[in-house]
Amino acid sequence: MTSRIQDNAAPGLDLAAAVARDAADPLAPFRDRFDIPAEVIYLDGNSLGVLPKGVAERVAESVASEWGTGLIRSWNAAGWIDLPRHVGARIAPLVGAEPDCVVAADSTTVNLFKVVSAAVSLRPERTKIVTETRNFPTDNYIAEGVIRQCGDRHRLVHVDRPQEIAAALDDDTAVLMLTHVNYRDGSLHDMAALTRAAHDAGALVVWDLAHSAGALAVDLAGCNADFAVGCGYKYLNGGPGAPAFLYVAPRHHGGFRQPLSGWFGHRDPFEFTPQYDAAGDIGQYLCGTPPVLSMVALDAALDVWEGVNMTALRAKSQALTGYFIELVETRCAGHGLTLISPRDPDSRGSQISFTHAEGGYAIISALIAEGVIGDFRAPDVLRFGFTPLYTSFADVWHAVDRMAAIMNERRWDKPEFHARKAVT
Amino acid sequence: MTSRIQDNAAPGLDLAAAVARDAADPLAPFRDRFDIPAEVIYLDGNSLGVLPKGVAERVAESVASEWGTGLIRSWNAAGWIDLPRHVGARIAPLVGAEPDCVVAADSTTVNLFKVVSAAVSLRPERTKIVTETRNFPTDNYIAEGVIRQCGDRHRLVHVDRPQEIAAALDDDTAVLMLTHVNYRDGSLHDMAALTRAAHDAGALVVWDLAHSAGALAVDLAGCNADFAVGCGYKYLNGGPGAPAFLYVAPRHHGGFRQPLSGWFGHRDPFEFTPQYDAAGDIGQYLCGTPPVLSMVALDAALDVWEGVNMTALRAKSQALTGYFIELVETRCAGHGLTLISPRDPDSRGSQISFTHAEGGYAIISALIAEGVIGDFRAPDVLRFGFTPLYTSFADVWHAVDRMAAIMNERRWDKPEFHARKAVT
Repeated sequence: MTSRIQDNAAPGLDLAAAVARDAADPLAPFRDRFDIPAEVIYLDGNSLGVLPKGVAERVAESVASEWGTGLIRSWNAAGWIDLPRHVGARIAPLVGAEPDCVVAADSTTVNLFKVVSAAVSLRPERTKIVTETRNFPTDNYIAEGVIRQCGDRHRLVHVDRPQEIAAALDDDTAVLMLTHVNYRDGSLHDMAALTRAAHDAGALVVWDLAHSAGALAVDLAGCNADFAVGCGYKYLNGGPGAPAFLYVAPRHHGGFRQPLSGWFGHRDPFEFTPQYDAAGDIGQYLCGTPPVLSMVALDAALDVWEGVNMTALRAKSQALTGYFIELVETRCAGHGLTLISPRDPDSRGSQISFTHAEGGYAIISALIAEGVIGDFRAPDVLRFGFTPLYTSFADVWHAVDRMAAIMNERRWDKPEFHARKAVT
Repeated sequence: MTSRIQDNAAPGLDLAAAVARDAADPLAPFRDRFDIPAEVIYLDGNSLGVLPKGVAERVAESVASEWGTGLIRSWNAAGWIDLPRHVGARIAPLVGAEPDCVVAADSTTVNLFKVVSAAVSLRPERTKIVTETRNFPTDNYIAEGVIRQCGDRHRLVHVDRPQEIAAALDDDTAVLMLTHVNYRDGSLHDMAALTRAAHDAGALVVWDLAHSAGALAVDLAGCNADFAVGCGYKYLNGGPGAPAFLYVAPRHHGGFRQPLSGWFGHRDPFEFTPQYDAAGDIGQYLCGTPPVLSMVALDAALDVWEGVNMTALRAKSQALTGYFIELVETRCAGHGLTLISPRDPDSRGSQISFTHAEGGYAIISALIAEGVIGDFRAPDVLRFGFTPLYTSFADVWHAVDRMAAIMNERRWDKPEFHARKAVT
């Protein structure tokens, strides 16, 4: 298939060409909606998105005025009580969800527990949960937790390769649980085809959109997805540990009581009825009191999506990632970096990963020391994320320029760059 | 038993006496550690604590500098990764916990799901979870959720009266799940005696400290408690929806895998092992990425506890609540307000509740309209919380002075005060 890079008129590999691409980029003006530190080139929006302008002011207002002055009255007056649904409704169009099918709440991990529990219980006679070996580990850990809690009646089936997923689905499969864009290599699943395959087998599908939401257009409703979860702090730029979101297709509303049956998921939380009476809609997937300050930051961060064309977003993401591959493979050739992300731009998300046998962690450390921020995933993966709303082609050029110097001079091979820190 | 009120030299019921009590109050200087709006008398710290000084600055710094400039590096450099344990360790002395037995995470409700699941699984042969009918409803809802998820092998036994709890414990009781201070009437359980009774029956105890932590000294270790959860946004003043905390006794660490087995509870989250390997310590009760901005606010809010004498705190709480009862029963007599909180100060927490058959909600609304903030709990309860660190005797006097005017002139009985809002 034709790469977007080749569609572009003679990009070239010098800085002038990168600058020219930025000048022609219809999304370039969106970079001004973010506060990006001048001294860094940030290629880690797939771990933590940068700070959108306006968020600091909104959070400060929420602390000083809503909390400080409004106090308990702000649950009504400042709309705190509506935040989980309000923020969910703002995320919905980014993931192709129907109205009233998304809420913001808890962490991605906790939300996954809710929806996997719900999905399993909607197929009570079946015993298999199918996942990938290479799925984000916490997703598989949570499936283990659900299985154990449900009395070990199910088993988690790990599929090693994407092309084997469809064959693993059978009439004993309750749930297919996949991450849309892989956290490690950035490879992208065909959501429509795999959802169809699961439904053909009578199973339900749970999609983890952690590396999709805000990175590319997602079409949950169009793909007929059953459940989804996603992250607020990566490409949605909601701040560190921002509340996550979850999606439940309308046909499953009310069909099952998710187990984290807290008062915020009650039909009328302030009636304080002795028995739980689950909300009949997406609200039953809420649990406890939401972390308002973090939720307000995410709400304000969603302002950056005003006027974004998702087709242009995807095209730029594919161009940035293709450009990065081309530059690294040209300028860092012969230094042991091996591309593990798909070369086909339609088969990847907005992230590019290389492995390096000797120096994965040390190379990332050396890059960070020189102001180029990517991240490392054990045992040997260098990850670079490209956020189409704020990453420029010049960023990519400068990042690889510094990387080439580090590789050519082997500047990464120093003891201080090999010493692992808590978060890698 | 002797009320603390009577211990105090001739308090009297006029404003001068209240002012004199404030002048003699050893905790009075702590009020200056909070930003309390001048125009309100705030008796709702049991719903949402007021804003401590320094929190706004700390949150602003976290947004602008840690997130905005530090970006992903702040997980190490700003200590974000340590926040759940760091904040937990700061809460520990307030609830009498051993070192390394408390973490701050998620919501109270989600944490309750973790610890009830753990407790039930540590008594696999037993089938009863004992609670109170009058327990905070979400606690009972979560027990329902655990039971359902575990295949309906257990049943939730609702005890109607506190004095019947001990008799309900038998050799089929897995867990006794209680809230230490009742959300509705403020009555206080004898933690030591009930924990002993549960252990005598071979059961484990889960304590909900939502209305205890920061309101009175709690002695989890001294009472030999098994598990506890608590709230960050009431008497700990951590801000709206602040992260909650949980406690697990050292003897139960590693004894069971709690079901929300997310990566933050893994022995080495960044090793990304294919199977879950639970941390051997309190860390396994973490799940997903914590909401950092809300966690930072809670951390900063805990600064107010520096130098607080918990014996003085409890004495002031008992004096404030006793004074409020005395004033209301004197100045609002004959207007249908019925005390439902214990008169014995050793049998209550830091909250006083009255019922009013006709006008519970409307009276609270009228009070709020006149700047006295308490809250309402369906169907007929007026709740007033007294936070010893910032509530003054003059606050109590002025609150009742306005309440007396509202009751005497029946100013609450207007349509606008009867109209219910979303959060009550």
